[in-house]
Order: sequence, then structure tokens, then C-alpha cells
Amino acid sequence: MSRLESFIRRLQAQRACLDHAVELIRELPGPVLELGLGNGRTYDHLRERLPRREIYAFDRQVAAHPDCIPPAGLLIIGEVRETLPELRARIDATVALIHADLGSGDAEASRRQAAALAPLIADLLRPGGIVVSDQALDTARLRPQALPAEVKPGRYFLYRAAED
Amino acid sequence: MSRLESFIRRLQAQRACLDHAVELIRELPGPVLELGLGNGRTYDHLRERLPRREIYAFDRQVAAHPDCIPPAGLLIIGEVRETLPELRARIDATVALIHADLGSGDAEASRRQAAALAPLIADLLRPGGIVVSDQALDTARLRPQALPAEVKPGRYFLYRAAED
Repeated sequence: MSRLESFIRRLQAQRACLDHAVELIRELPGPVLELGLGNGRTYDHLRERLPRREIYAFDRQVAAHPDCIPPAGLLIIGEVRETLPELRARIDATVALIHADLGSGDAEASRRQAAALAPLIADLLRPGGIVVSDQALDTARLRPQALPAEVKPGRYFLYRAAED
Repeated sequence: MSRLESFIRRLQAQRACLDHAVELIRELPGPVLELGLGNGRTYDHLRERLPRREIYAFDRQVAAHPDCIPPAGLLIIGEVRETLPELRARIDATVALIHADLGSGDAEASRRQAAALAPLIADLLRPGGIVVSDQALDTARLRPQALPAEVKPGRYFLYRAAED
């Protein structure tokens, strides 16, 4: 499969998982986190699908399209390993949905980053909250969920926070 | 439509046009040009679909994935306005297919670049040769061709060089 083909399938999987997650949190209050704002494409998708939610976007620096930069109070710049616990101290475990798009070209570094962030991510979700992730997240509180039928297992990941 | 949705549709249009162009040149000999190597995704798609063709790739600098860097003789670094005429002097009007992925975030600059390159592109094609482009190309020798049915007009462009 060419890299073009593979990239299209990855983006389709990402869209399918985000749209499914939006349905899963319909009755669940709370803000949304976008980890890895990047060019802002998935941020734009989430704010279009969830126009009444607060969406916090995290990144090391702002590289997004000018139309896709969050309002000041919702843009959090820095190392996610530090900024996630800081947000936890402010808003407690109230988050309904987290999209974690963390992978870089370096598979081993991406796995290490996912392992370090999994407990911080889990700690921000309210019971029943959802994580959509491009990396597997292995931590006690996150339970793997079935993917949309069109998404090949391993291409994207979906978790729900335990009800405690 | 969100930027994620719009981007997926653009990539699907790109893939559909490239696959269609590959069919159109099946009986037409000659090399292929990729103008704007970028990350190398469409270059990878073309070399997978056309394993027996020489594919020249052009860019200002190499930013492609290491797997997607062409062999030395087929990688042409520099300003396309200069390197296209240089190649024309070497290989004459023998090219079967050109993929021009020239657009930047700046719509006006992209239009100017397309206007400057259209005659240089046309001048490299053999009669009946095909251009797939992300920009409209307005030059006498290039005749607009019908797009694949699933591609919205204006999303991508397809031309055939006049038979002279």
C-alpha cells in the first residue's frame, strides 16, 4: 500500500473514531482536550461537531492554521507531561473527551510518550469519559472500546474511563 | 465542512486523479515528473503504480520521508522555473505524465506559480501526455480532461497535451 493510500486510511480512521466518540459523550457533560494541536485539522473537526463544548488544545508551540487557533484561555502551550497535571489541578476529573494525537515519525519515542501520558490522561477524565488516541494507552482506568466497523484494529484506539 | 473532512476529500481526489492518469498513459511511453516531492506520499503512490517508469522528482529541498527519496539521478533540487527548462534540454518533449502539486497556503502565490510553470510543463510532455495538477493550468497546448466521477470540479485538474 502506498504512503498516500495509508495516510488516507489513517485520516478516515481518525474521523470515524472522533465522530463515534462525539456520539458516545452526547449525554456526558464536561470539556474536551485536544493533545497535539498540530495544524489544527482535528481541532477544527471537534469544534464543528461540538460547538457548545469548551475545547482545550495543547501543543509545544503553535503551528496551526490561523483559523484553527483556540481562544487564549483554551490554548495551553508547553510540555504535555507538565501542562496536563496543571490543568488537572484546575478542573479536576471533569473531562468528557480527550483526543490524543501524539505519534511522531519515531515509533519508539511515540510509545514512550504514550506510556508516560496514559495515567495523566486517565486522571483527567470523568467516569465514562472517552479517549480517542493514535497510540495504545495501557493504564488501569482506561478500558478498550470497540472501534467503528470501518476502522482496522491497531490503526486508531478508543478507551472509556472506568465508572469507579 | 471541517478542515479534516476537506483534507480527506482533497487526498481522495488526488489519488483518484493519479490512478486515472496512470490508466490514461498505459500505452504512452516516457518518464514521469513529480513537481513538489514534499513528504513523498504521492511520489510513493506513483512509483508503486508505475514500477517500470523513470520518475523524476523536483523540490526546493529534500523534506521527504527517508523511504521516499528518489535515486540520485532522478532527484532534481532547485527552483522548478529553472530546473524544468534544464531537464527539457536533456530529455526533449518525451514525458508521459506530470503531477504538479504546487499549491502553498498562499492562494495568490500559488496561482502566480501555476501561471509561470504552465508553459514549461506543457513543453515537456509528448503529444497526448497527461498533467494532474492541484492548480488550474492555462496554456495553449494543455486541453482540460474530464475528472473521475467522484472528484468535485475545481478540487483537482487534469489536462492532456495536444497531439500537435
